Amino acid sequence: MQRNVENFIGCESSYEDAKIVLFGAPFDSTTSFRPGARFGPAAMRHESFGLETYSPYQDKDLEDLAVFDSGDLELCFGSSEMALADIEARAREIVSDGKFPLLLGGEHLVTLGAVRAVLEKYPELHIVHFDAHADLRDDYLGAQLSHACVLRRCHDLIGDGRIHQFCIRSGERAEFRFAAQHTDMHPFSFDGLAELTEQLTCTQVPVYLTIDLDCLDPSAFPGTGTPEAGGVSFLQLLDAIRTITQANIVAADVNELAPMLDTSGVSTATACKVLRELLLALHV
Amino acid sequence: MQRNVENFIGCESSYEDAKIVLFGAPFDSTTSFRPGARFGPAAMRHESFGLETYSPYQDKDLEDLAVFDSGDLELCFGSSEMALADIEARAREIVSDGKFPLLLGGEHLVTLGAVRAVLEKYPELHIVHFDAHADLRDDYLGAQLSHACVLRRCHDLIGDGRIHQFCIRSGERAEFRFAAQHTDMHPFSFDGLAELTEQLTCTQVPVYLTIDLDCLDPSAFPGTGTPEAGGVSFLQLLDAIRTITQANIVAADVNELAPMLDTSGVSTATACKVLRELLLALHV
Amino acid sequence: MQRNVENFIGCESSYEDAKIVLFGAPFDSTTSFRPGARFGPAAMRHESFGLETYSPYQDKDLEDLAVFDSGDLELCFGSSEMALADIEARAREIVSDGKFPLLLGGEHLVTLGAVRAVLEKYPELHIVHFDAHADLRDDYLGAQLSHACVLRRCHDLIGDGRIHQFCIRSGERAEFRFAAQHTDMHPFSFDGLAELTEQLTCTQVPVYLTIDLDCLDPSAFPGTGTPEAGGVSFLQLLDAIRTITQANIVAADVNELAPMLDTSGVSTATACKVLRELLLALHV
Amino acid sequence: MQRNVENFIGCESSYEDAKIVLFGAPFDSTTSFRPGARFGPAAMRHESFGLETYSPYQDKDLEDLAVFDSGDLELCFGSSEMALADIEARAREIVSDGKFPLLLGGEHLVTLGAVRAVLEKYPELHIVHFDAHADLRDDYLGAQLSHACVLRRCHDLIGDGRIHQFCIRSGERAEFRFAAQHTDMHPFSFDGLAELTEQLTCTQVPVYLTIDLDCLDPSAFPGTGTPEAGGVSFLQLLDAIRTITQANIVAADVNELAPMLDTSGVSTATACKVLRELLLALHV
Amino acid sequence: MQRNVENFIGCESSYEDAKIVLFGAPFDSTTSFRPGARFGPAAMRHESFGLETYSPYQDKDLEDLAVFDSGDLELCFGSSEMALADIEARAREIVSDGKFPLLLGGEHLVTLGAVRAVLEKYPELHIVHFDAHADLRDDYLGAQLSHACVLRRCHDLIGDGRIHQFCIRSGERAEFRFAAQHTDMHPFSFDGLAELTEQLTCTQVPVYLTIDLDCLDPSAFPGTGTPEAGGVSFLQLLDAIRTITQANIVAADVNELAPMLDTSGVSTATACKVLRELLLALHV
Amino acid sequence: MQRNVENFIGCESSYEDAKIVLFGAPFDSTTSFRPGARFGPAAMRHESFGLETYSPYQDKDLEDLAVFDSGDLELCFGSSEMALADIEARAREIVSDGKFPLLLGGEHLVTLGAVRAVLEKYPELHIVHFDAHADLRDDYLGAQLSHACVLRRCHDLIGDGRIHQFCIRSGERAEFRFAAQHTDMHPFSFDGLAELTEQLTCTQVPVYLTIDLDCLDPSAFPGTGTPEAGGVSFLQLLDAIRTITQANIVAADVNELAPMLDTSGVSTATACKVLRELLLALHV
Repeated sequence: MQRNVENFIGCESSYEDAKIVLFGAPFDSTTSFRPGARFGPAAMRHESFGLETYSPYQDKDLEDLAVFDSGDLELCFGSSEMALADIEARAREIVSDGKFPLLLGGEHLVTLGAVRAVLEKYPELHIVHFDAHADLRDDYLGAQLSHACVLRRCHDLIGDGRIHQFCIRSGERAEFRFAAQHTDMHPFSFDGLAELTEQLTCTQVPVYLTIDLDCLDPSAFPGTGTPEAGGVSFLQLLDAIRTITQANIVAADVNELAPMLDTSGVSTATACKVLRELLLALHV
Repeated sequence: MQRNVENFIGCESSYEDAKIVLFGAPFDSTTSFRPGARFGPAAMRHESFGLETYSPYQDKDLEDLAVFDSGDLELCFGSSEMALADIEARAREIVSDGKFPLLLGGEHLVTLGAVRAVLEKYPELHIVHFDAHADLRDDYLGAQLSHACVLRRCHDLIGDGRIHQFCIRSGERAEFRFAAQHTDMHPFSFDGLAELTEQLTCTQVPVYLTIDLDCLDPSAFPGTGTPEAGGVSFLQLLDAIRTITQANIVAADVNELAPMLDTSGVSTATACKVLRELLLALHV
Repeated sequence: MQRNVENFIGCESSYEDAKIVLFGAPFDSTTSFRPGARFGPAAMRHESFGLETYSPYQDKDLEDLAVFDSGDLELCFGSSEMALADIEARAREIVSDGKFPLLLGGEHLVTLGAVRAVLEKYPELHIVHFDAHADLRDDYLGAQLSHACVLRRCHDLIGDGRIHQFCIRSGERAEFRFAAQHTDMHPFSFDGLAELTEQLTCTQVPVYLTIDLDCLDPSAFPGTGTPEAGGVSFLQLLDAIRTITQANIVAADVNELAPMLDTSGVSTATACKVLRELLLALHV
Repeated sequence: MQRNVENFIGCESSYEDAKIVLFGAPFDSTTSFRPGARFGPAAMRHESFGLETYSPYQDKDLEDLAVFDSGDLELCFGSSEMALADIEARAREIVSDGKFPLLLGGEHLVTLGAVRAVLEKYPELHIVHFDAHADLRDDYLGAQLSHACVLRRCHDLIGDGRIHQFCIRSGERAEFRFAAQHTDMHPFSFDGLAELTEQLTCTQVPVYLTIDLDCLDPSAFPGTGTPEAGGVSFLQLLDAIRTITQANIVAADVNELAPMLDTSGVSTATACKVLRELLLALHV
Repeated sequence: MQRNVENFIGCESSYEDAKIVLFGAPFDSTTSFRPGARFGPAAMRHESFGLETYSPYQDKDLEDLAVFDSGDLELCFGSSEMALADIEARAREIVSDGKFPLLLGGEHLVTLGAVRAVLEKYPELHIVHFDAHADLRDDYLGAQLSHACVLRRCHDLIGDGRIHQFCIRSGERAEFRFAAQHTDMHPFSFDGLAELTEQLTCTQVPVYLTIDLDCLDPSAFPGTGTPEAGGVSFLQLLDAIRTITQANIVAADVNELAPMLDTSGVSTATACKVLRELLLALHV
Repeated sequence: MQRNVENFIGCESSYEDAKIVLFGAPFDSTTSFRPGARFGPAAMRHESFGLETYSPYQDKDLEDLAVFDSGDLELCFGSSEMALADIEARAREIVSDGKFPLLLGGEHLVTLGAVRAVLEKYPELHIVHFDAHADLRDDYLGAQLSHACVLRRCHDLIGDGRIHQFCIRSGERAEFRFAAQHTDMHPFSFDGLAELTEQLTCTQVPVYLTIDLDCLDPSAFPGTGTPEAGGVSFLQLLDAIRTITQANIVAADVNELAPMLDTSGVSTATACKVLRELLLALHV
């Protein structure tokens, strides 16, 4: 008789054999509007059993991969710095073991922890960012460690021209002004992603891919804290994932599923499918 | 220490300085299927704080406008005529002060109150109507003052050829027959809106714009009393708004959000964004 | 004073006069993920009163048809074979009376009962299958009578090349391998439906049409047990229905609405509209 | 093959044989806070199939009674007077046929229609009223026909000392002042009901029993427009019903279930049980 | 880095050391009204992390016990006999290893599997049954293996006078007649439990305790398929558990939580607490 | 035309005239289980319009009081210390103006901000604490500023014997051990409150009253982050409030309503009623 192990479906490799390591960061303390992203990774793991391991889009199967699911970190609520430190430590361990860290948020601030760790190994890191929101505020209600500031904090670390933003359709005027000067912003859609991918692939520069699921239109993905009409479809996101993964992706995250906000369960099911397709598309 | 004022976000002008005046009509007594539109305007006001004041689509900011939000009228439930009289009085006051009335419903019947007031000042008024439903019944279960009859009542007031209907995809056969003879109906989509706008702009005829949010597809806007599959997307509605506002719009309304019917909150968030974009697009 | 008869809207013919007979199969005992499809037919009947009988798409009205609604069967939960026997008996009665059986599920397994009955009369039957899932497993957790196996069981009865599958985007690798050899599968969309319809129409071969509503994208139809991102829109499904009904359809079903999973009511309203359009499109 | 008749469970008598006649009044146009009581009677009928016909409390079975369920009236929304006239006409027909009318609301205003009809036959009528709210306002936002005024309107008809109110725990100060002078009010509980019943039974005066289900504590019955903490339990209500039905009850109603407000379904199930126990307790 | 093990809180013993073994039976195929009990055991395990391991009622802590949680069985939907066989096999394994089986349902039918296994070892077994429903039908819509028949099937196995039923408040007249002759039924409450416990304790007869959580009042426990007003409170159930566990309990189950039916989460939290208190009260 | 002011019902005094000042602290960043208490105060304000200003329990009316509602503070999410500082500043301002501060949470940690301010003026302050949870942990996942530690932090400030806890039914064993030595704990109920009140009233010692609404049983109040079965009823809480307010209460708070967790709205309505009764009971 076995203990009750709960993985994301098809992610049953041992840590030793794994090429990709999943870890969840159930944190949403800085969420300003509607919290609940803390429940995202556990919901994805739990509901993944309604999903097949096989993708007819890619004709690949999770059972052919070697993925280890390390479950959720136990993070302190109410202290962003402590939570980020724990996320950073876990990402560092995975990276230093030569494996690919795939972080499941949680609110978008969790990305900063992983980026800090990955940047140590890959100082020339670029970030590709799919999101409805620019996340480029310098502070939010006085806090510099906020989901609304996370790409700004990444910019503090890696500087101009290395953050590539897609699907952005919400932000303050000042954020769009900042982006015009400091990031490579592609508002509203994935226009420009193919060209970018070609450049990144050419140079084999290491890339961190961060997917805020609210880049999806709320019709496809209502279960998120701040839904923004006018987003992309699931098939467009799938296409974008299959495009960008031709570059040298060294780490990734998928975040901002707030499962309780969508009682139909569609958002969680869709998040699972995004993760499955991302896992299958990665060339690790 | 201040009282707790609750505006739609960014609508903080004084009444005196305002060019546009918001007012809510929390009424849904004639709703025949699923009530709840009464909660629409308060929900929009409350949830607007999840929205930015800046629109990257139009590169404009609500903070640059002068909008006063007068809150919700206190309307009698169970008496359509009394409620319409109160709406008409409020609209008349705003119009006579030389300001633009923007009514937030409530069920679609509320439009009749505002149209009555606006028509006094602009007897040559045209109505541009975005909706899933024709709303052209002569009566509904014996009531002539019903959401299902509101455009018919408007037709009683302004006659043939001055009601322009878009996105209509539901009604009795008799309503479509009526429309064929008396209104300018464009079923299913915004086809023909650009041409109409050109004509209306040419002549500078005054236009009342009434947006029943159920013109949107239920995937984008489930939170409404009578959702009708086959509607337009948010981006199509946004485009239509930016088109028609090139005409001489003198009053407008946005109605039929029933927030409790969509527990994900997406419908309310989308209604807020429609209102923001409408406010920014108006040339007042 | 009359008893309280509850029909699908506009389906008020007597049994004798009827050309089409609706019957509900409120069964979901083999549903593996999220049950609730048992409530589908009653919800459609009940909520149809929010729908018009007239379709502006087809300019036809249910009031011009002769449809009898026989309500729901009283099926045994927990015994698939008993439930299928009851469904088969009802379908046989309708078919032998020279009428068109239109079955409302319930989970997709119910199709097998109707197919068994229809096949007796039409041994050369083809099946046209709209679905997100291949439903071609040989067994599911040991059960051969399972929603996940229903087209496989139909294949047992009618053999290779007579099952035509559209919109399929989920299944095990083995199911797609099976389809490649034994069925006519069109993954992801309705591509190929026009050509198939032409062939079927030419030969006037009898066709059973089974519509699993989860062929729709979850944005349009979240209220189903296993929502699969990447589906078709309502208008695409409507178009497909109007296409395939040009063939010699002799029986049909609409299934897998689980109304409690979509508290907004949109899924039920959309299912009602699909049924209305299907009834109006049939040439019976 | 039969049409789909939907009764309250066990209420399958013909009209001719029936001693009790159920009729629903799906009306809630004057509801001031949260609408939805219009869906009450249909929900009770539909969900009654989760209930047994047998009561172990009373050791009686609905199958031994003769009850006819005439379904819901089709009432005009937005016109209280028209709706009341239809309710009154139906109640009059039942009363004049020598049967017991049992009205299912809807909002509490519907009681007025039935009381008008019953009062014609029984001019000496008393009203026993179980409710959280006094419903004694003279008008509500200008409307005299409002759920909040219904017992005041009844008082207009029958005068002082003939309205007996129990469980009342909400109202304006003026309503409690009015009650002190004009009605027989028992706040908070059923204290005094046994004594009252004894008096009423003695004199065999005809009694109309109106049960606003929000007399129940919201823990037992959350699905109602205006839940008021501090109510009675189901068992206390059951006891009260079994007590008062020893008097000469000539008509009754059960109202204010708003099923959509309680997604757990408990409120509807409880309303069904209250109706079953009331039917079984009546001495008709 | 560890795999993600998910236990009921505080149940982290190895199987070897464990005195009590939890196992889940996620089965609800025969549920006739509202399914969803299949999700009960996983929800309890998942949500138990909102619970403390310490009980101030008993001043005991789960950390002092040795409980192994073996997770959920993977059961076949749609075949009651196959599911029961799997449950029986697991229970037999636990019993034959000298441990205490504690089964988490699922619908109440699952009890039959465990009783079959336990009865082999303890042929003189008595059953103590807390439930709202008698569950004594001989068949339900033709099925003898149904949740509505489970105690009748147990009676087939152990005969008269060895089934002790408490809190029963729903059933057909025939079930209550059957109980009067064949079981020891205590309707409505726990009256008589202390006396029974004394007798059972005296003789040290082995007892199987089956707790259908719908014995609780729906106000305390709305999340169950067939809620029945008039039940006991949590504190009364806690008291009953602490009473009956003084007897020689040799196996137990807790069933009929349908977590999706109570979106507030209270039912799941309460089920967790019942399980914690039961575990702490058992003298194993 | 007026701006849209939103008060708690009947709290329309000017600040100058007010004796009691309401302020909301929409903070829940340290909530460990289910967030959402941030939405509590706005929901209470908004839904209070379903409540009467008059209490038949106390025969008093809010319109006779002078209460100012200053709305919600705009607090930083993700930094407990910053949020507490803002709460403390607001409470200090109210206290120094000689008015009574009544704080609406938010999670229970907000109490610490108010206690800090009140303690400055009343160094001999006692705290009376109604709650399901002891809230006496020294830290929670490393954070000392956590809802689970708030009374422990208060104890740090005021020491032994001055914290009086009622209804407590959840906590770690260590918290109950701590309470046994350092606080005056009354588990499970209000037993002992009358005696305590008498002592406190005698000495006229200043008292801070903190009401965590989860002291209520989840049947009465499901809308809270961590519902705990076995709580008190609304009427028991009302009685306790009317008792303790005979002491010299100098400040108070009401917290832990998470309105989105109870879609029926009952929890919010009940919280409003608790606040109304508390306001009316205070002798200010």
